Amino acid sequence: MSRLTPPALAIDGATLMQRLRELGAIGRDEAGGLSRLALTEQDKAGRDCLVRWMKDAGLKISVDAIGNIFGTWMPEIDAAAVMIGSHIDTVVNAGIYDGCTGVLSGLAVMETLQAAGLEPHCPIIIAAFTNEEGARYAPDMMGSLVYAGGLALEEALSTEGTDGSILGDELRRIGYAGSMQPGAITPRAFLELHVEQGPVLEAEGIAIGAVENLQGISWQRVVIDGDANHAGTTPTGMRRDAGLAAARVVTFLRDYVTAPNAATVATVGTMQFEPDVINVIPSRAIFTVDLRDPDEDRLRTAEAALRDFLDELGESDRVSVSSERLARFEPVEFDENLATLIEASATERNLTCRRMTSGAGHDAQMMARICPSAMIFVPSTDGISHNPREHTHEADLIAGANVLLDVARALSDAE
Amino acid sequence: MSRLTPPALAIDGATLMQRLRELGAIGRDEAGGLSRLALTEQDKAGRDCLVRWMKDAGLKISVDAIGNIFGTWMPEIDAAAVMIGSHIDTVVNAGIYDGCTGVLSGLAVMETLQAAGLEPHCPIIIAAFTNEEGARYAPDMMGSLVYAGGLALEEALSTEGTDGSILGDELRRIGYAGSMQPGAITPRAFLELHVEQGPVLEAEGIAIGAVENLQGISWQRVVIDGDANHAGTTPTGMRRDAGLAAARVVTFLRDYVTAPNAATVATVGTMQFEPDVINVIPSRAIFTVDLRDPDEDRLRTAEAALRDFLDELGESDRVSVSSERLARFEPVEFDENLATLIEASATERNLTCRRMTSGAGHDAQMMARICPSAMIFVPSTDGISHNPREHTHEADLIAGANVLLDVARALSDAE
Repeated sequence: MSRLTPPALAIDGATLMQRLRELGAIGRDEAGGLSRLALTEQDKAGRDCLVRWMKDAGLKISVDAIGNIFGTWMPEIDAAAVMIGSHIDTVVNAGIYDGCTGVLSGLAVMETLQAAGLEPHCPIIIAAFTNEEGARYAPDMMGSLVYAGGLALEEALSTEGTDGSILGDELRRIGYAGSMQPGAITPRAFLELHVEQGPVLEAEGIAIGAVENLQGISWQRVVIDGDANHAGTTPTGMRRDAGLAAARVVTFLRDYVTAPNAATVATVGTMQFEPDVINVIPSRAIFTVDLRDPDEDRLRTAEAALRDFLDELGESDRVSVSSERLARFEPVEFDENLATLIEASATERNLTCRRMTSGAGHDAQMMARICPSAMIFVPSTDGISHNPREHTHEADLIAGANVLLDVARALSDAE
Repeated sequence: MSRLTPPALAIDGATLMQRLRELGAIGRDEAGGLSRLALTEQDKAGRDCLVRWMKDAGLKISVDAIGNIFGTWMPEIDAAAVMIGSHIDTVVNAGIYDGCTGVLSGLAVMETLQAAGLEPHCPIIIAAFTNEEGARYAPDMMGSLVYAGGLALEEALSTEGTDGSILGDELRRIGYAGSMQPGAITPRAFLELHVEQGPVLEAEGIAIGAVENLQGISWQRVVIDGDANHAGTTPTGMRRDAGLAAARVVTFLRDYVTAPNAATVATVGTMQFEPDVINVIPSRAIFTVDLRDPDEDRLRTAEAALRDFLDELGESDRVSVSSERLARFEPVEFDENLATLIEASATERNLTCRRMTSGAGHDAQMMARICPSAMIFVPSTDGISHNPREHTHEADLIAGANVLLDVARALSDAE
């Protein structure tokens, strides 16, 4: 890996912010909410805008068969490319920074190198991956997953959306079913700048996160069955209360992650009681468990601890317990050298920096399957994301883009 | 109070069962479910059927201004009456025993005394109270509450139903807005035979419950507010998890009632999380708490313990907690002499019997405000009620009606 080039350059922050706002204006509904779901008319408009900016920067546009867009500078150089990217699709009622920051910062990096008259020793590619959010088609991170060989193209194209549409049909309809084979280019490195979407950097007053790994994710749905009985006439000792048993799982999980296992996080985000009547003991509780840990062994240990607790609960509370796996991703280790380069850039720019773990999924985790990859995080105000209130201070965004610039410059030996 | 008359008589069990089935056939929907909600066409048909049977037994029919139906035997005797009753309205998708057992057993008792050629020394009145279930109009036990002076007639008549109807309009429409003043007759005693609607008698293998008191009821809705944040990116220590806080309340309540305070029962029957998404920490949890205890002081202590716990939770979990009272009834003590008479009858008939507390509300609790009152419970199979599977064995029903017969005979000095 290359040494870091001194930070003599700076990206054009005003243009970056202007483009973030311009792209963020595409897909506004009547109430002002932003929804640019994958492969909708709104997504097409966003893609067209991005491609126009890429062309203005003199990039060669390629689109692969899953709709990932690549803008390449210096395609004629015969060397493995540096790829910088993220996604531009959004969830419903989204913010303007998630994903777009990574794509537009990449563009800014390249324009900065161009404006400085520097030439890289390898191509630099800006990538915008299809359907990262998964809000219309499951799974999320689909474009990068297909690109990295983790999901067959045909399977992805035949995915049915929440609206009944077929992904491949929509891709053709909006004109982004490209001819390039997904995975055709193996980059020398992949870099993704992203808003943290969590509270850590802001809470600690740190400007730059050098993301060294990404949590493994385990999603389960648990169903507990007891007996619906009258809340007044059923003595405590004769109850089989599914709601109580569910509550015991919630408090168990918190106790578990508060113990020495501090790296695991556990969330019970959904909960339904049946029959859900004030004076009837719940006969059924249905809830989800979201477990995450950057270490696969610890994640498995947490899953086993939950399984054991559910087994004991069946005995102690005389309830029936079943669980179903909804999703499972192993943790991802990012490239150590890239993380070190990010830290070095931050140090040279007098930016506070810490190593950190990504709690959310990102395209970089898929690209890590095929090339050295890393992420740069910048602070999210109040940790809010997937929400119109998603915000990152302009200075933080620009600082992150400058670190991205340094690392890309070093990797491409742009002189 | 009179001494108990030897149990030389027995009610006509076959007729009682036949009438329970016949009344239980009125209000069946296409799927076979029974719903005879107060003051509907179905309720009118049930009332008409009951009045016909009462008239066949030679009773004088009176209807009061809230629609309570009274059938009086020997109205000409100038002495305070013995009143026997319950209700014939049902919940949605009900069983056939709840309420109807008490009314039709009363009729059977009177017919048995008539058939034996006995004459009481006071009138005997069979009462069917309006809207005991409260499934269409709140509050429940409305007819007996108005009768006992606990709710103004005008207020009751202006009650708006879940279907938007006005109670007084519906009462007139079905022809049961009577001219009698509610409360006009103060009985010497009120007796109500009812299915237990709980599992205690069956579990203990006991035939007769001599109900000595009725639990006080405290209903609250609790709202806990935290922060919706990303399940992956928010460290455990930075979470304000409303769902977790709600779970702590559920387990606290069970711990509380499992401790020395065994007479209190606590139920969290309803629970909603917001936004109720698998990978978002709940920002809000809304749930209900149903607390019951036959002792007012203990019930207040339980309410205070919950209040203290909610206060502590606001601190410990950094959440906002608010609670709202939905309903509150003080415990009711039934008449000791009547309970003793019930026990004596059971003993003479070689029926197992225990003193017990009613966990549910009943018309007898309202009548207890104006005259000595008591209830007789018979076992509910599997403790099930408010359900098509509600069931009491025929032998248990008849045994209960015979105890009712003995007590009514003793109270009216029927010789």
